Amino acid sequence: MMMEINLLVGGPVKNWPDNLLIKKKTAVWAGADRGALYLVKNGIRPLLAIGDFDSATSRERKLIFAKSQRVITDQPEKDDTDTELAVRHLLIDYQAERINIYGATGGRLDHLLANLFFVMRPEFRPHLQKIFLFDRQNSISFFGPGHYSITRETDKKYLAFVLLTKVAKLSLYDEKYQLAAKSFAYPLSLASNEFVGQTASFSFASGVISVIQSKDLK
Amino acid sequence: MMMEINLLVGGPVKNWPDNLLIKKKTAVWAGADRGALYLVKNGIRPLLAIGDFDSATSRERKLIFAKSQRVITDQPEKDDTDTELAVRHLLIDYQAERINIYGATGGRLDHLLANLFFVMRPEFRPHLQKIFLFDRQNSISFFGPGHYSITRETDKKYLAFVLLTKVAKLSLYDEKYQLAAKSFAYPLSLASNEFVGQTASFSFASGVISVIQSKDLK
Repeated sequence: MMMEINLLVGGPVKNWPDNLLIKKKTAVWAGADRGALYLVKNGIRPLLAIGDFDSATSRERKLIFAKSQRVITDQPEKDDTDTELAVRHLLIDYQAERINIYGATGGRLDHLLANLFFVMRPEFRPHLQKIFLFDRQNSISFFGPGHYSITRETDKKYLAFVLLTKVAKLSLYDEKYQLAAKSFAYPLSLASNEFVGQTASFSFASGVISVIQSKDLK
Repeated sequence: MMMEINLLVGGPVKNWPDNLLIKKKTAVWAGADRGALYLVKNGIRPLLAIGDFDSATSRERKLIFAKSQRVITDQPEKDDTDTELAVRHLLIDYQAERINIYGATGGRLDHLLANLFFVMRPEFRPHLQKIFLFDRQNSISFFGPGHYSITRETDKKYLAFVLLTKVAKLSLYDEKYQLAAKSFAYPLSLASNEFVGQTASFSFASGVISVIQSKDLK
């Protein structure tokens, strides 16, 4: 069975997918910083709680320690975020094959961008296809060079190819807007594309691409 | 006098800085797509309204046309967003020396990333220091290679250096966490730094950096 772990980080609750902790109550969870507190307060017993929990009260810290299967309070390495520290442990200690990250958007943009960009660091680069971010109107996946076919999420309308680096020979084969082996010398968000059928296929020769499926809110 | 233009794009109102249109009622405004509608509905007569206004009702379209000093309904070029089309016109037709963009965050992430990354396109690259993005907890500026000193915004706590490309010889001279001519081979968000005094100075030799001042919400 694939080891799939959900990771809740500390972004605003209003940006979470609807009923996240209710729908995923029995899933495997880890929490970073305030994310760990949300989990234990909602009756979830995380595999791992990580962070310095500076902003928690002493009662909240006690709750995190009592209700988590393991707590790591190490200071992150310089330039590391709690998210990276958590992902590192989930990949190495728990051999996670898929990590769904929630709570990564909606607050400070430096946090959001750290949560998007860390996959490009050499340490995480081999694992980038295991890492997914979700919020209430976006789902984000990452790809290195190769040929891929992805499936439309039923509640999403838009499809974006966000070039996180320069990218060589990007082809979009069967989307609403197509490309034939086009190269880009700088990062760029190719937004507002759409699926035509239930799948979309693409390939590229070098660089890192984030694929975002999204919807407008009513 | 410096030509400073505010540009409202279509992101969610709840992400705007508090009382934005009240505080800036007498400023010079332009609106892209739904942003133009918000302006005219709030009694502001924009210099320019730009977009196809597809999502507007015919009554709303009439209002935009009646209350704007100029309306451009051209389809954006392929890969262009309404934001880019608006910024291009503001730079060329109005010789804008500073463009403050609001409404660029909080909804679809592909839009947010398009609004962050477009400054790196060759057309906008010479103007990137004229372009600023603001929301209720973040203010974002852009820099090409050089030596800079920036001033702390009184309501902000955190300072981030977001490397939008690979960056050579980044020095942070007087921040809480400092760097000495460090190079980075890939984009990265150096988040959660802080001002020590009222200014922060930094320099780098190549690449594009976005500086973000941010605060937590109460």
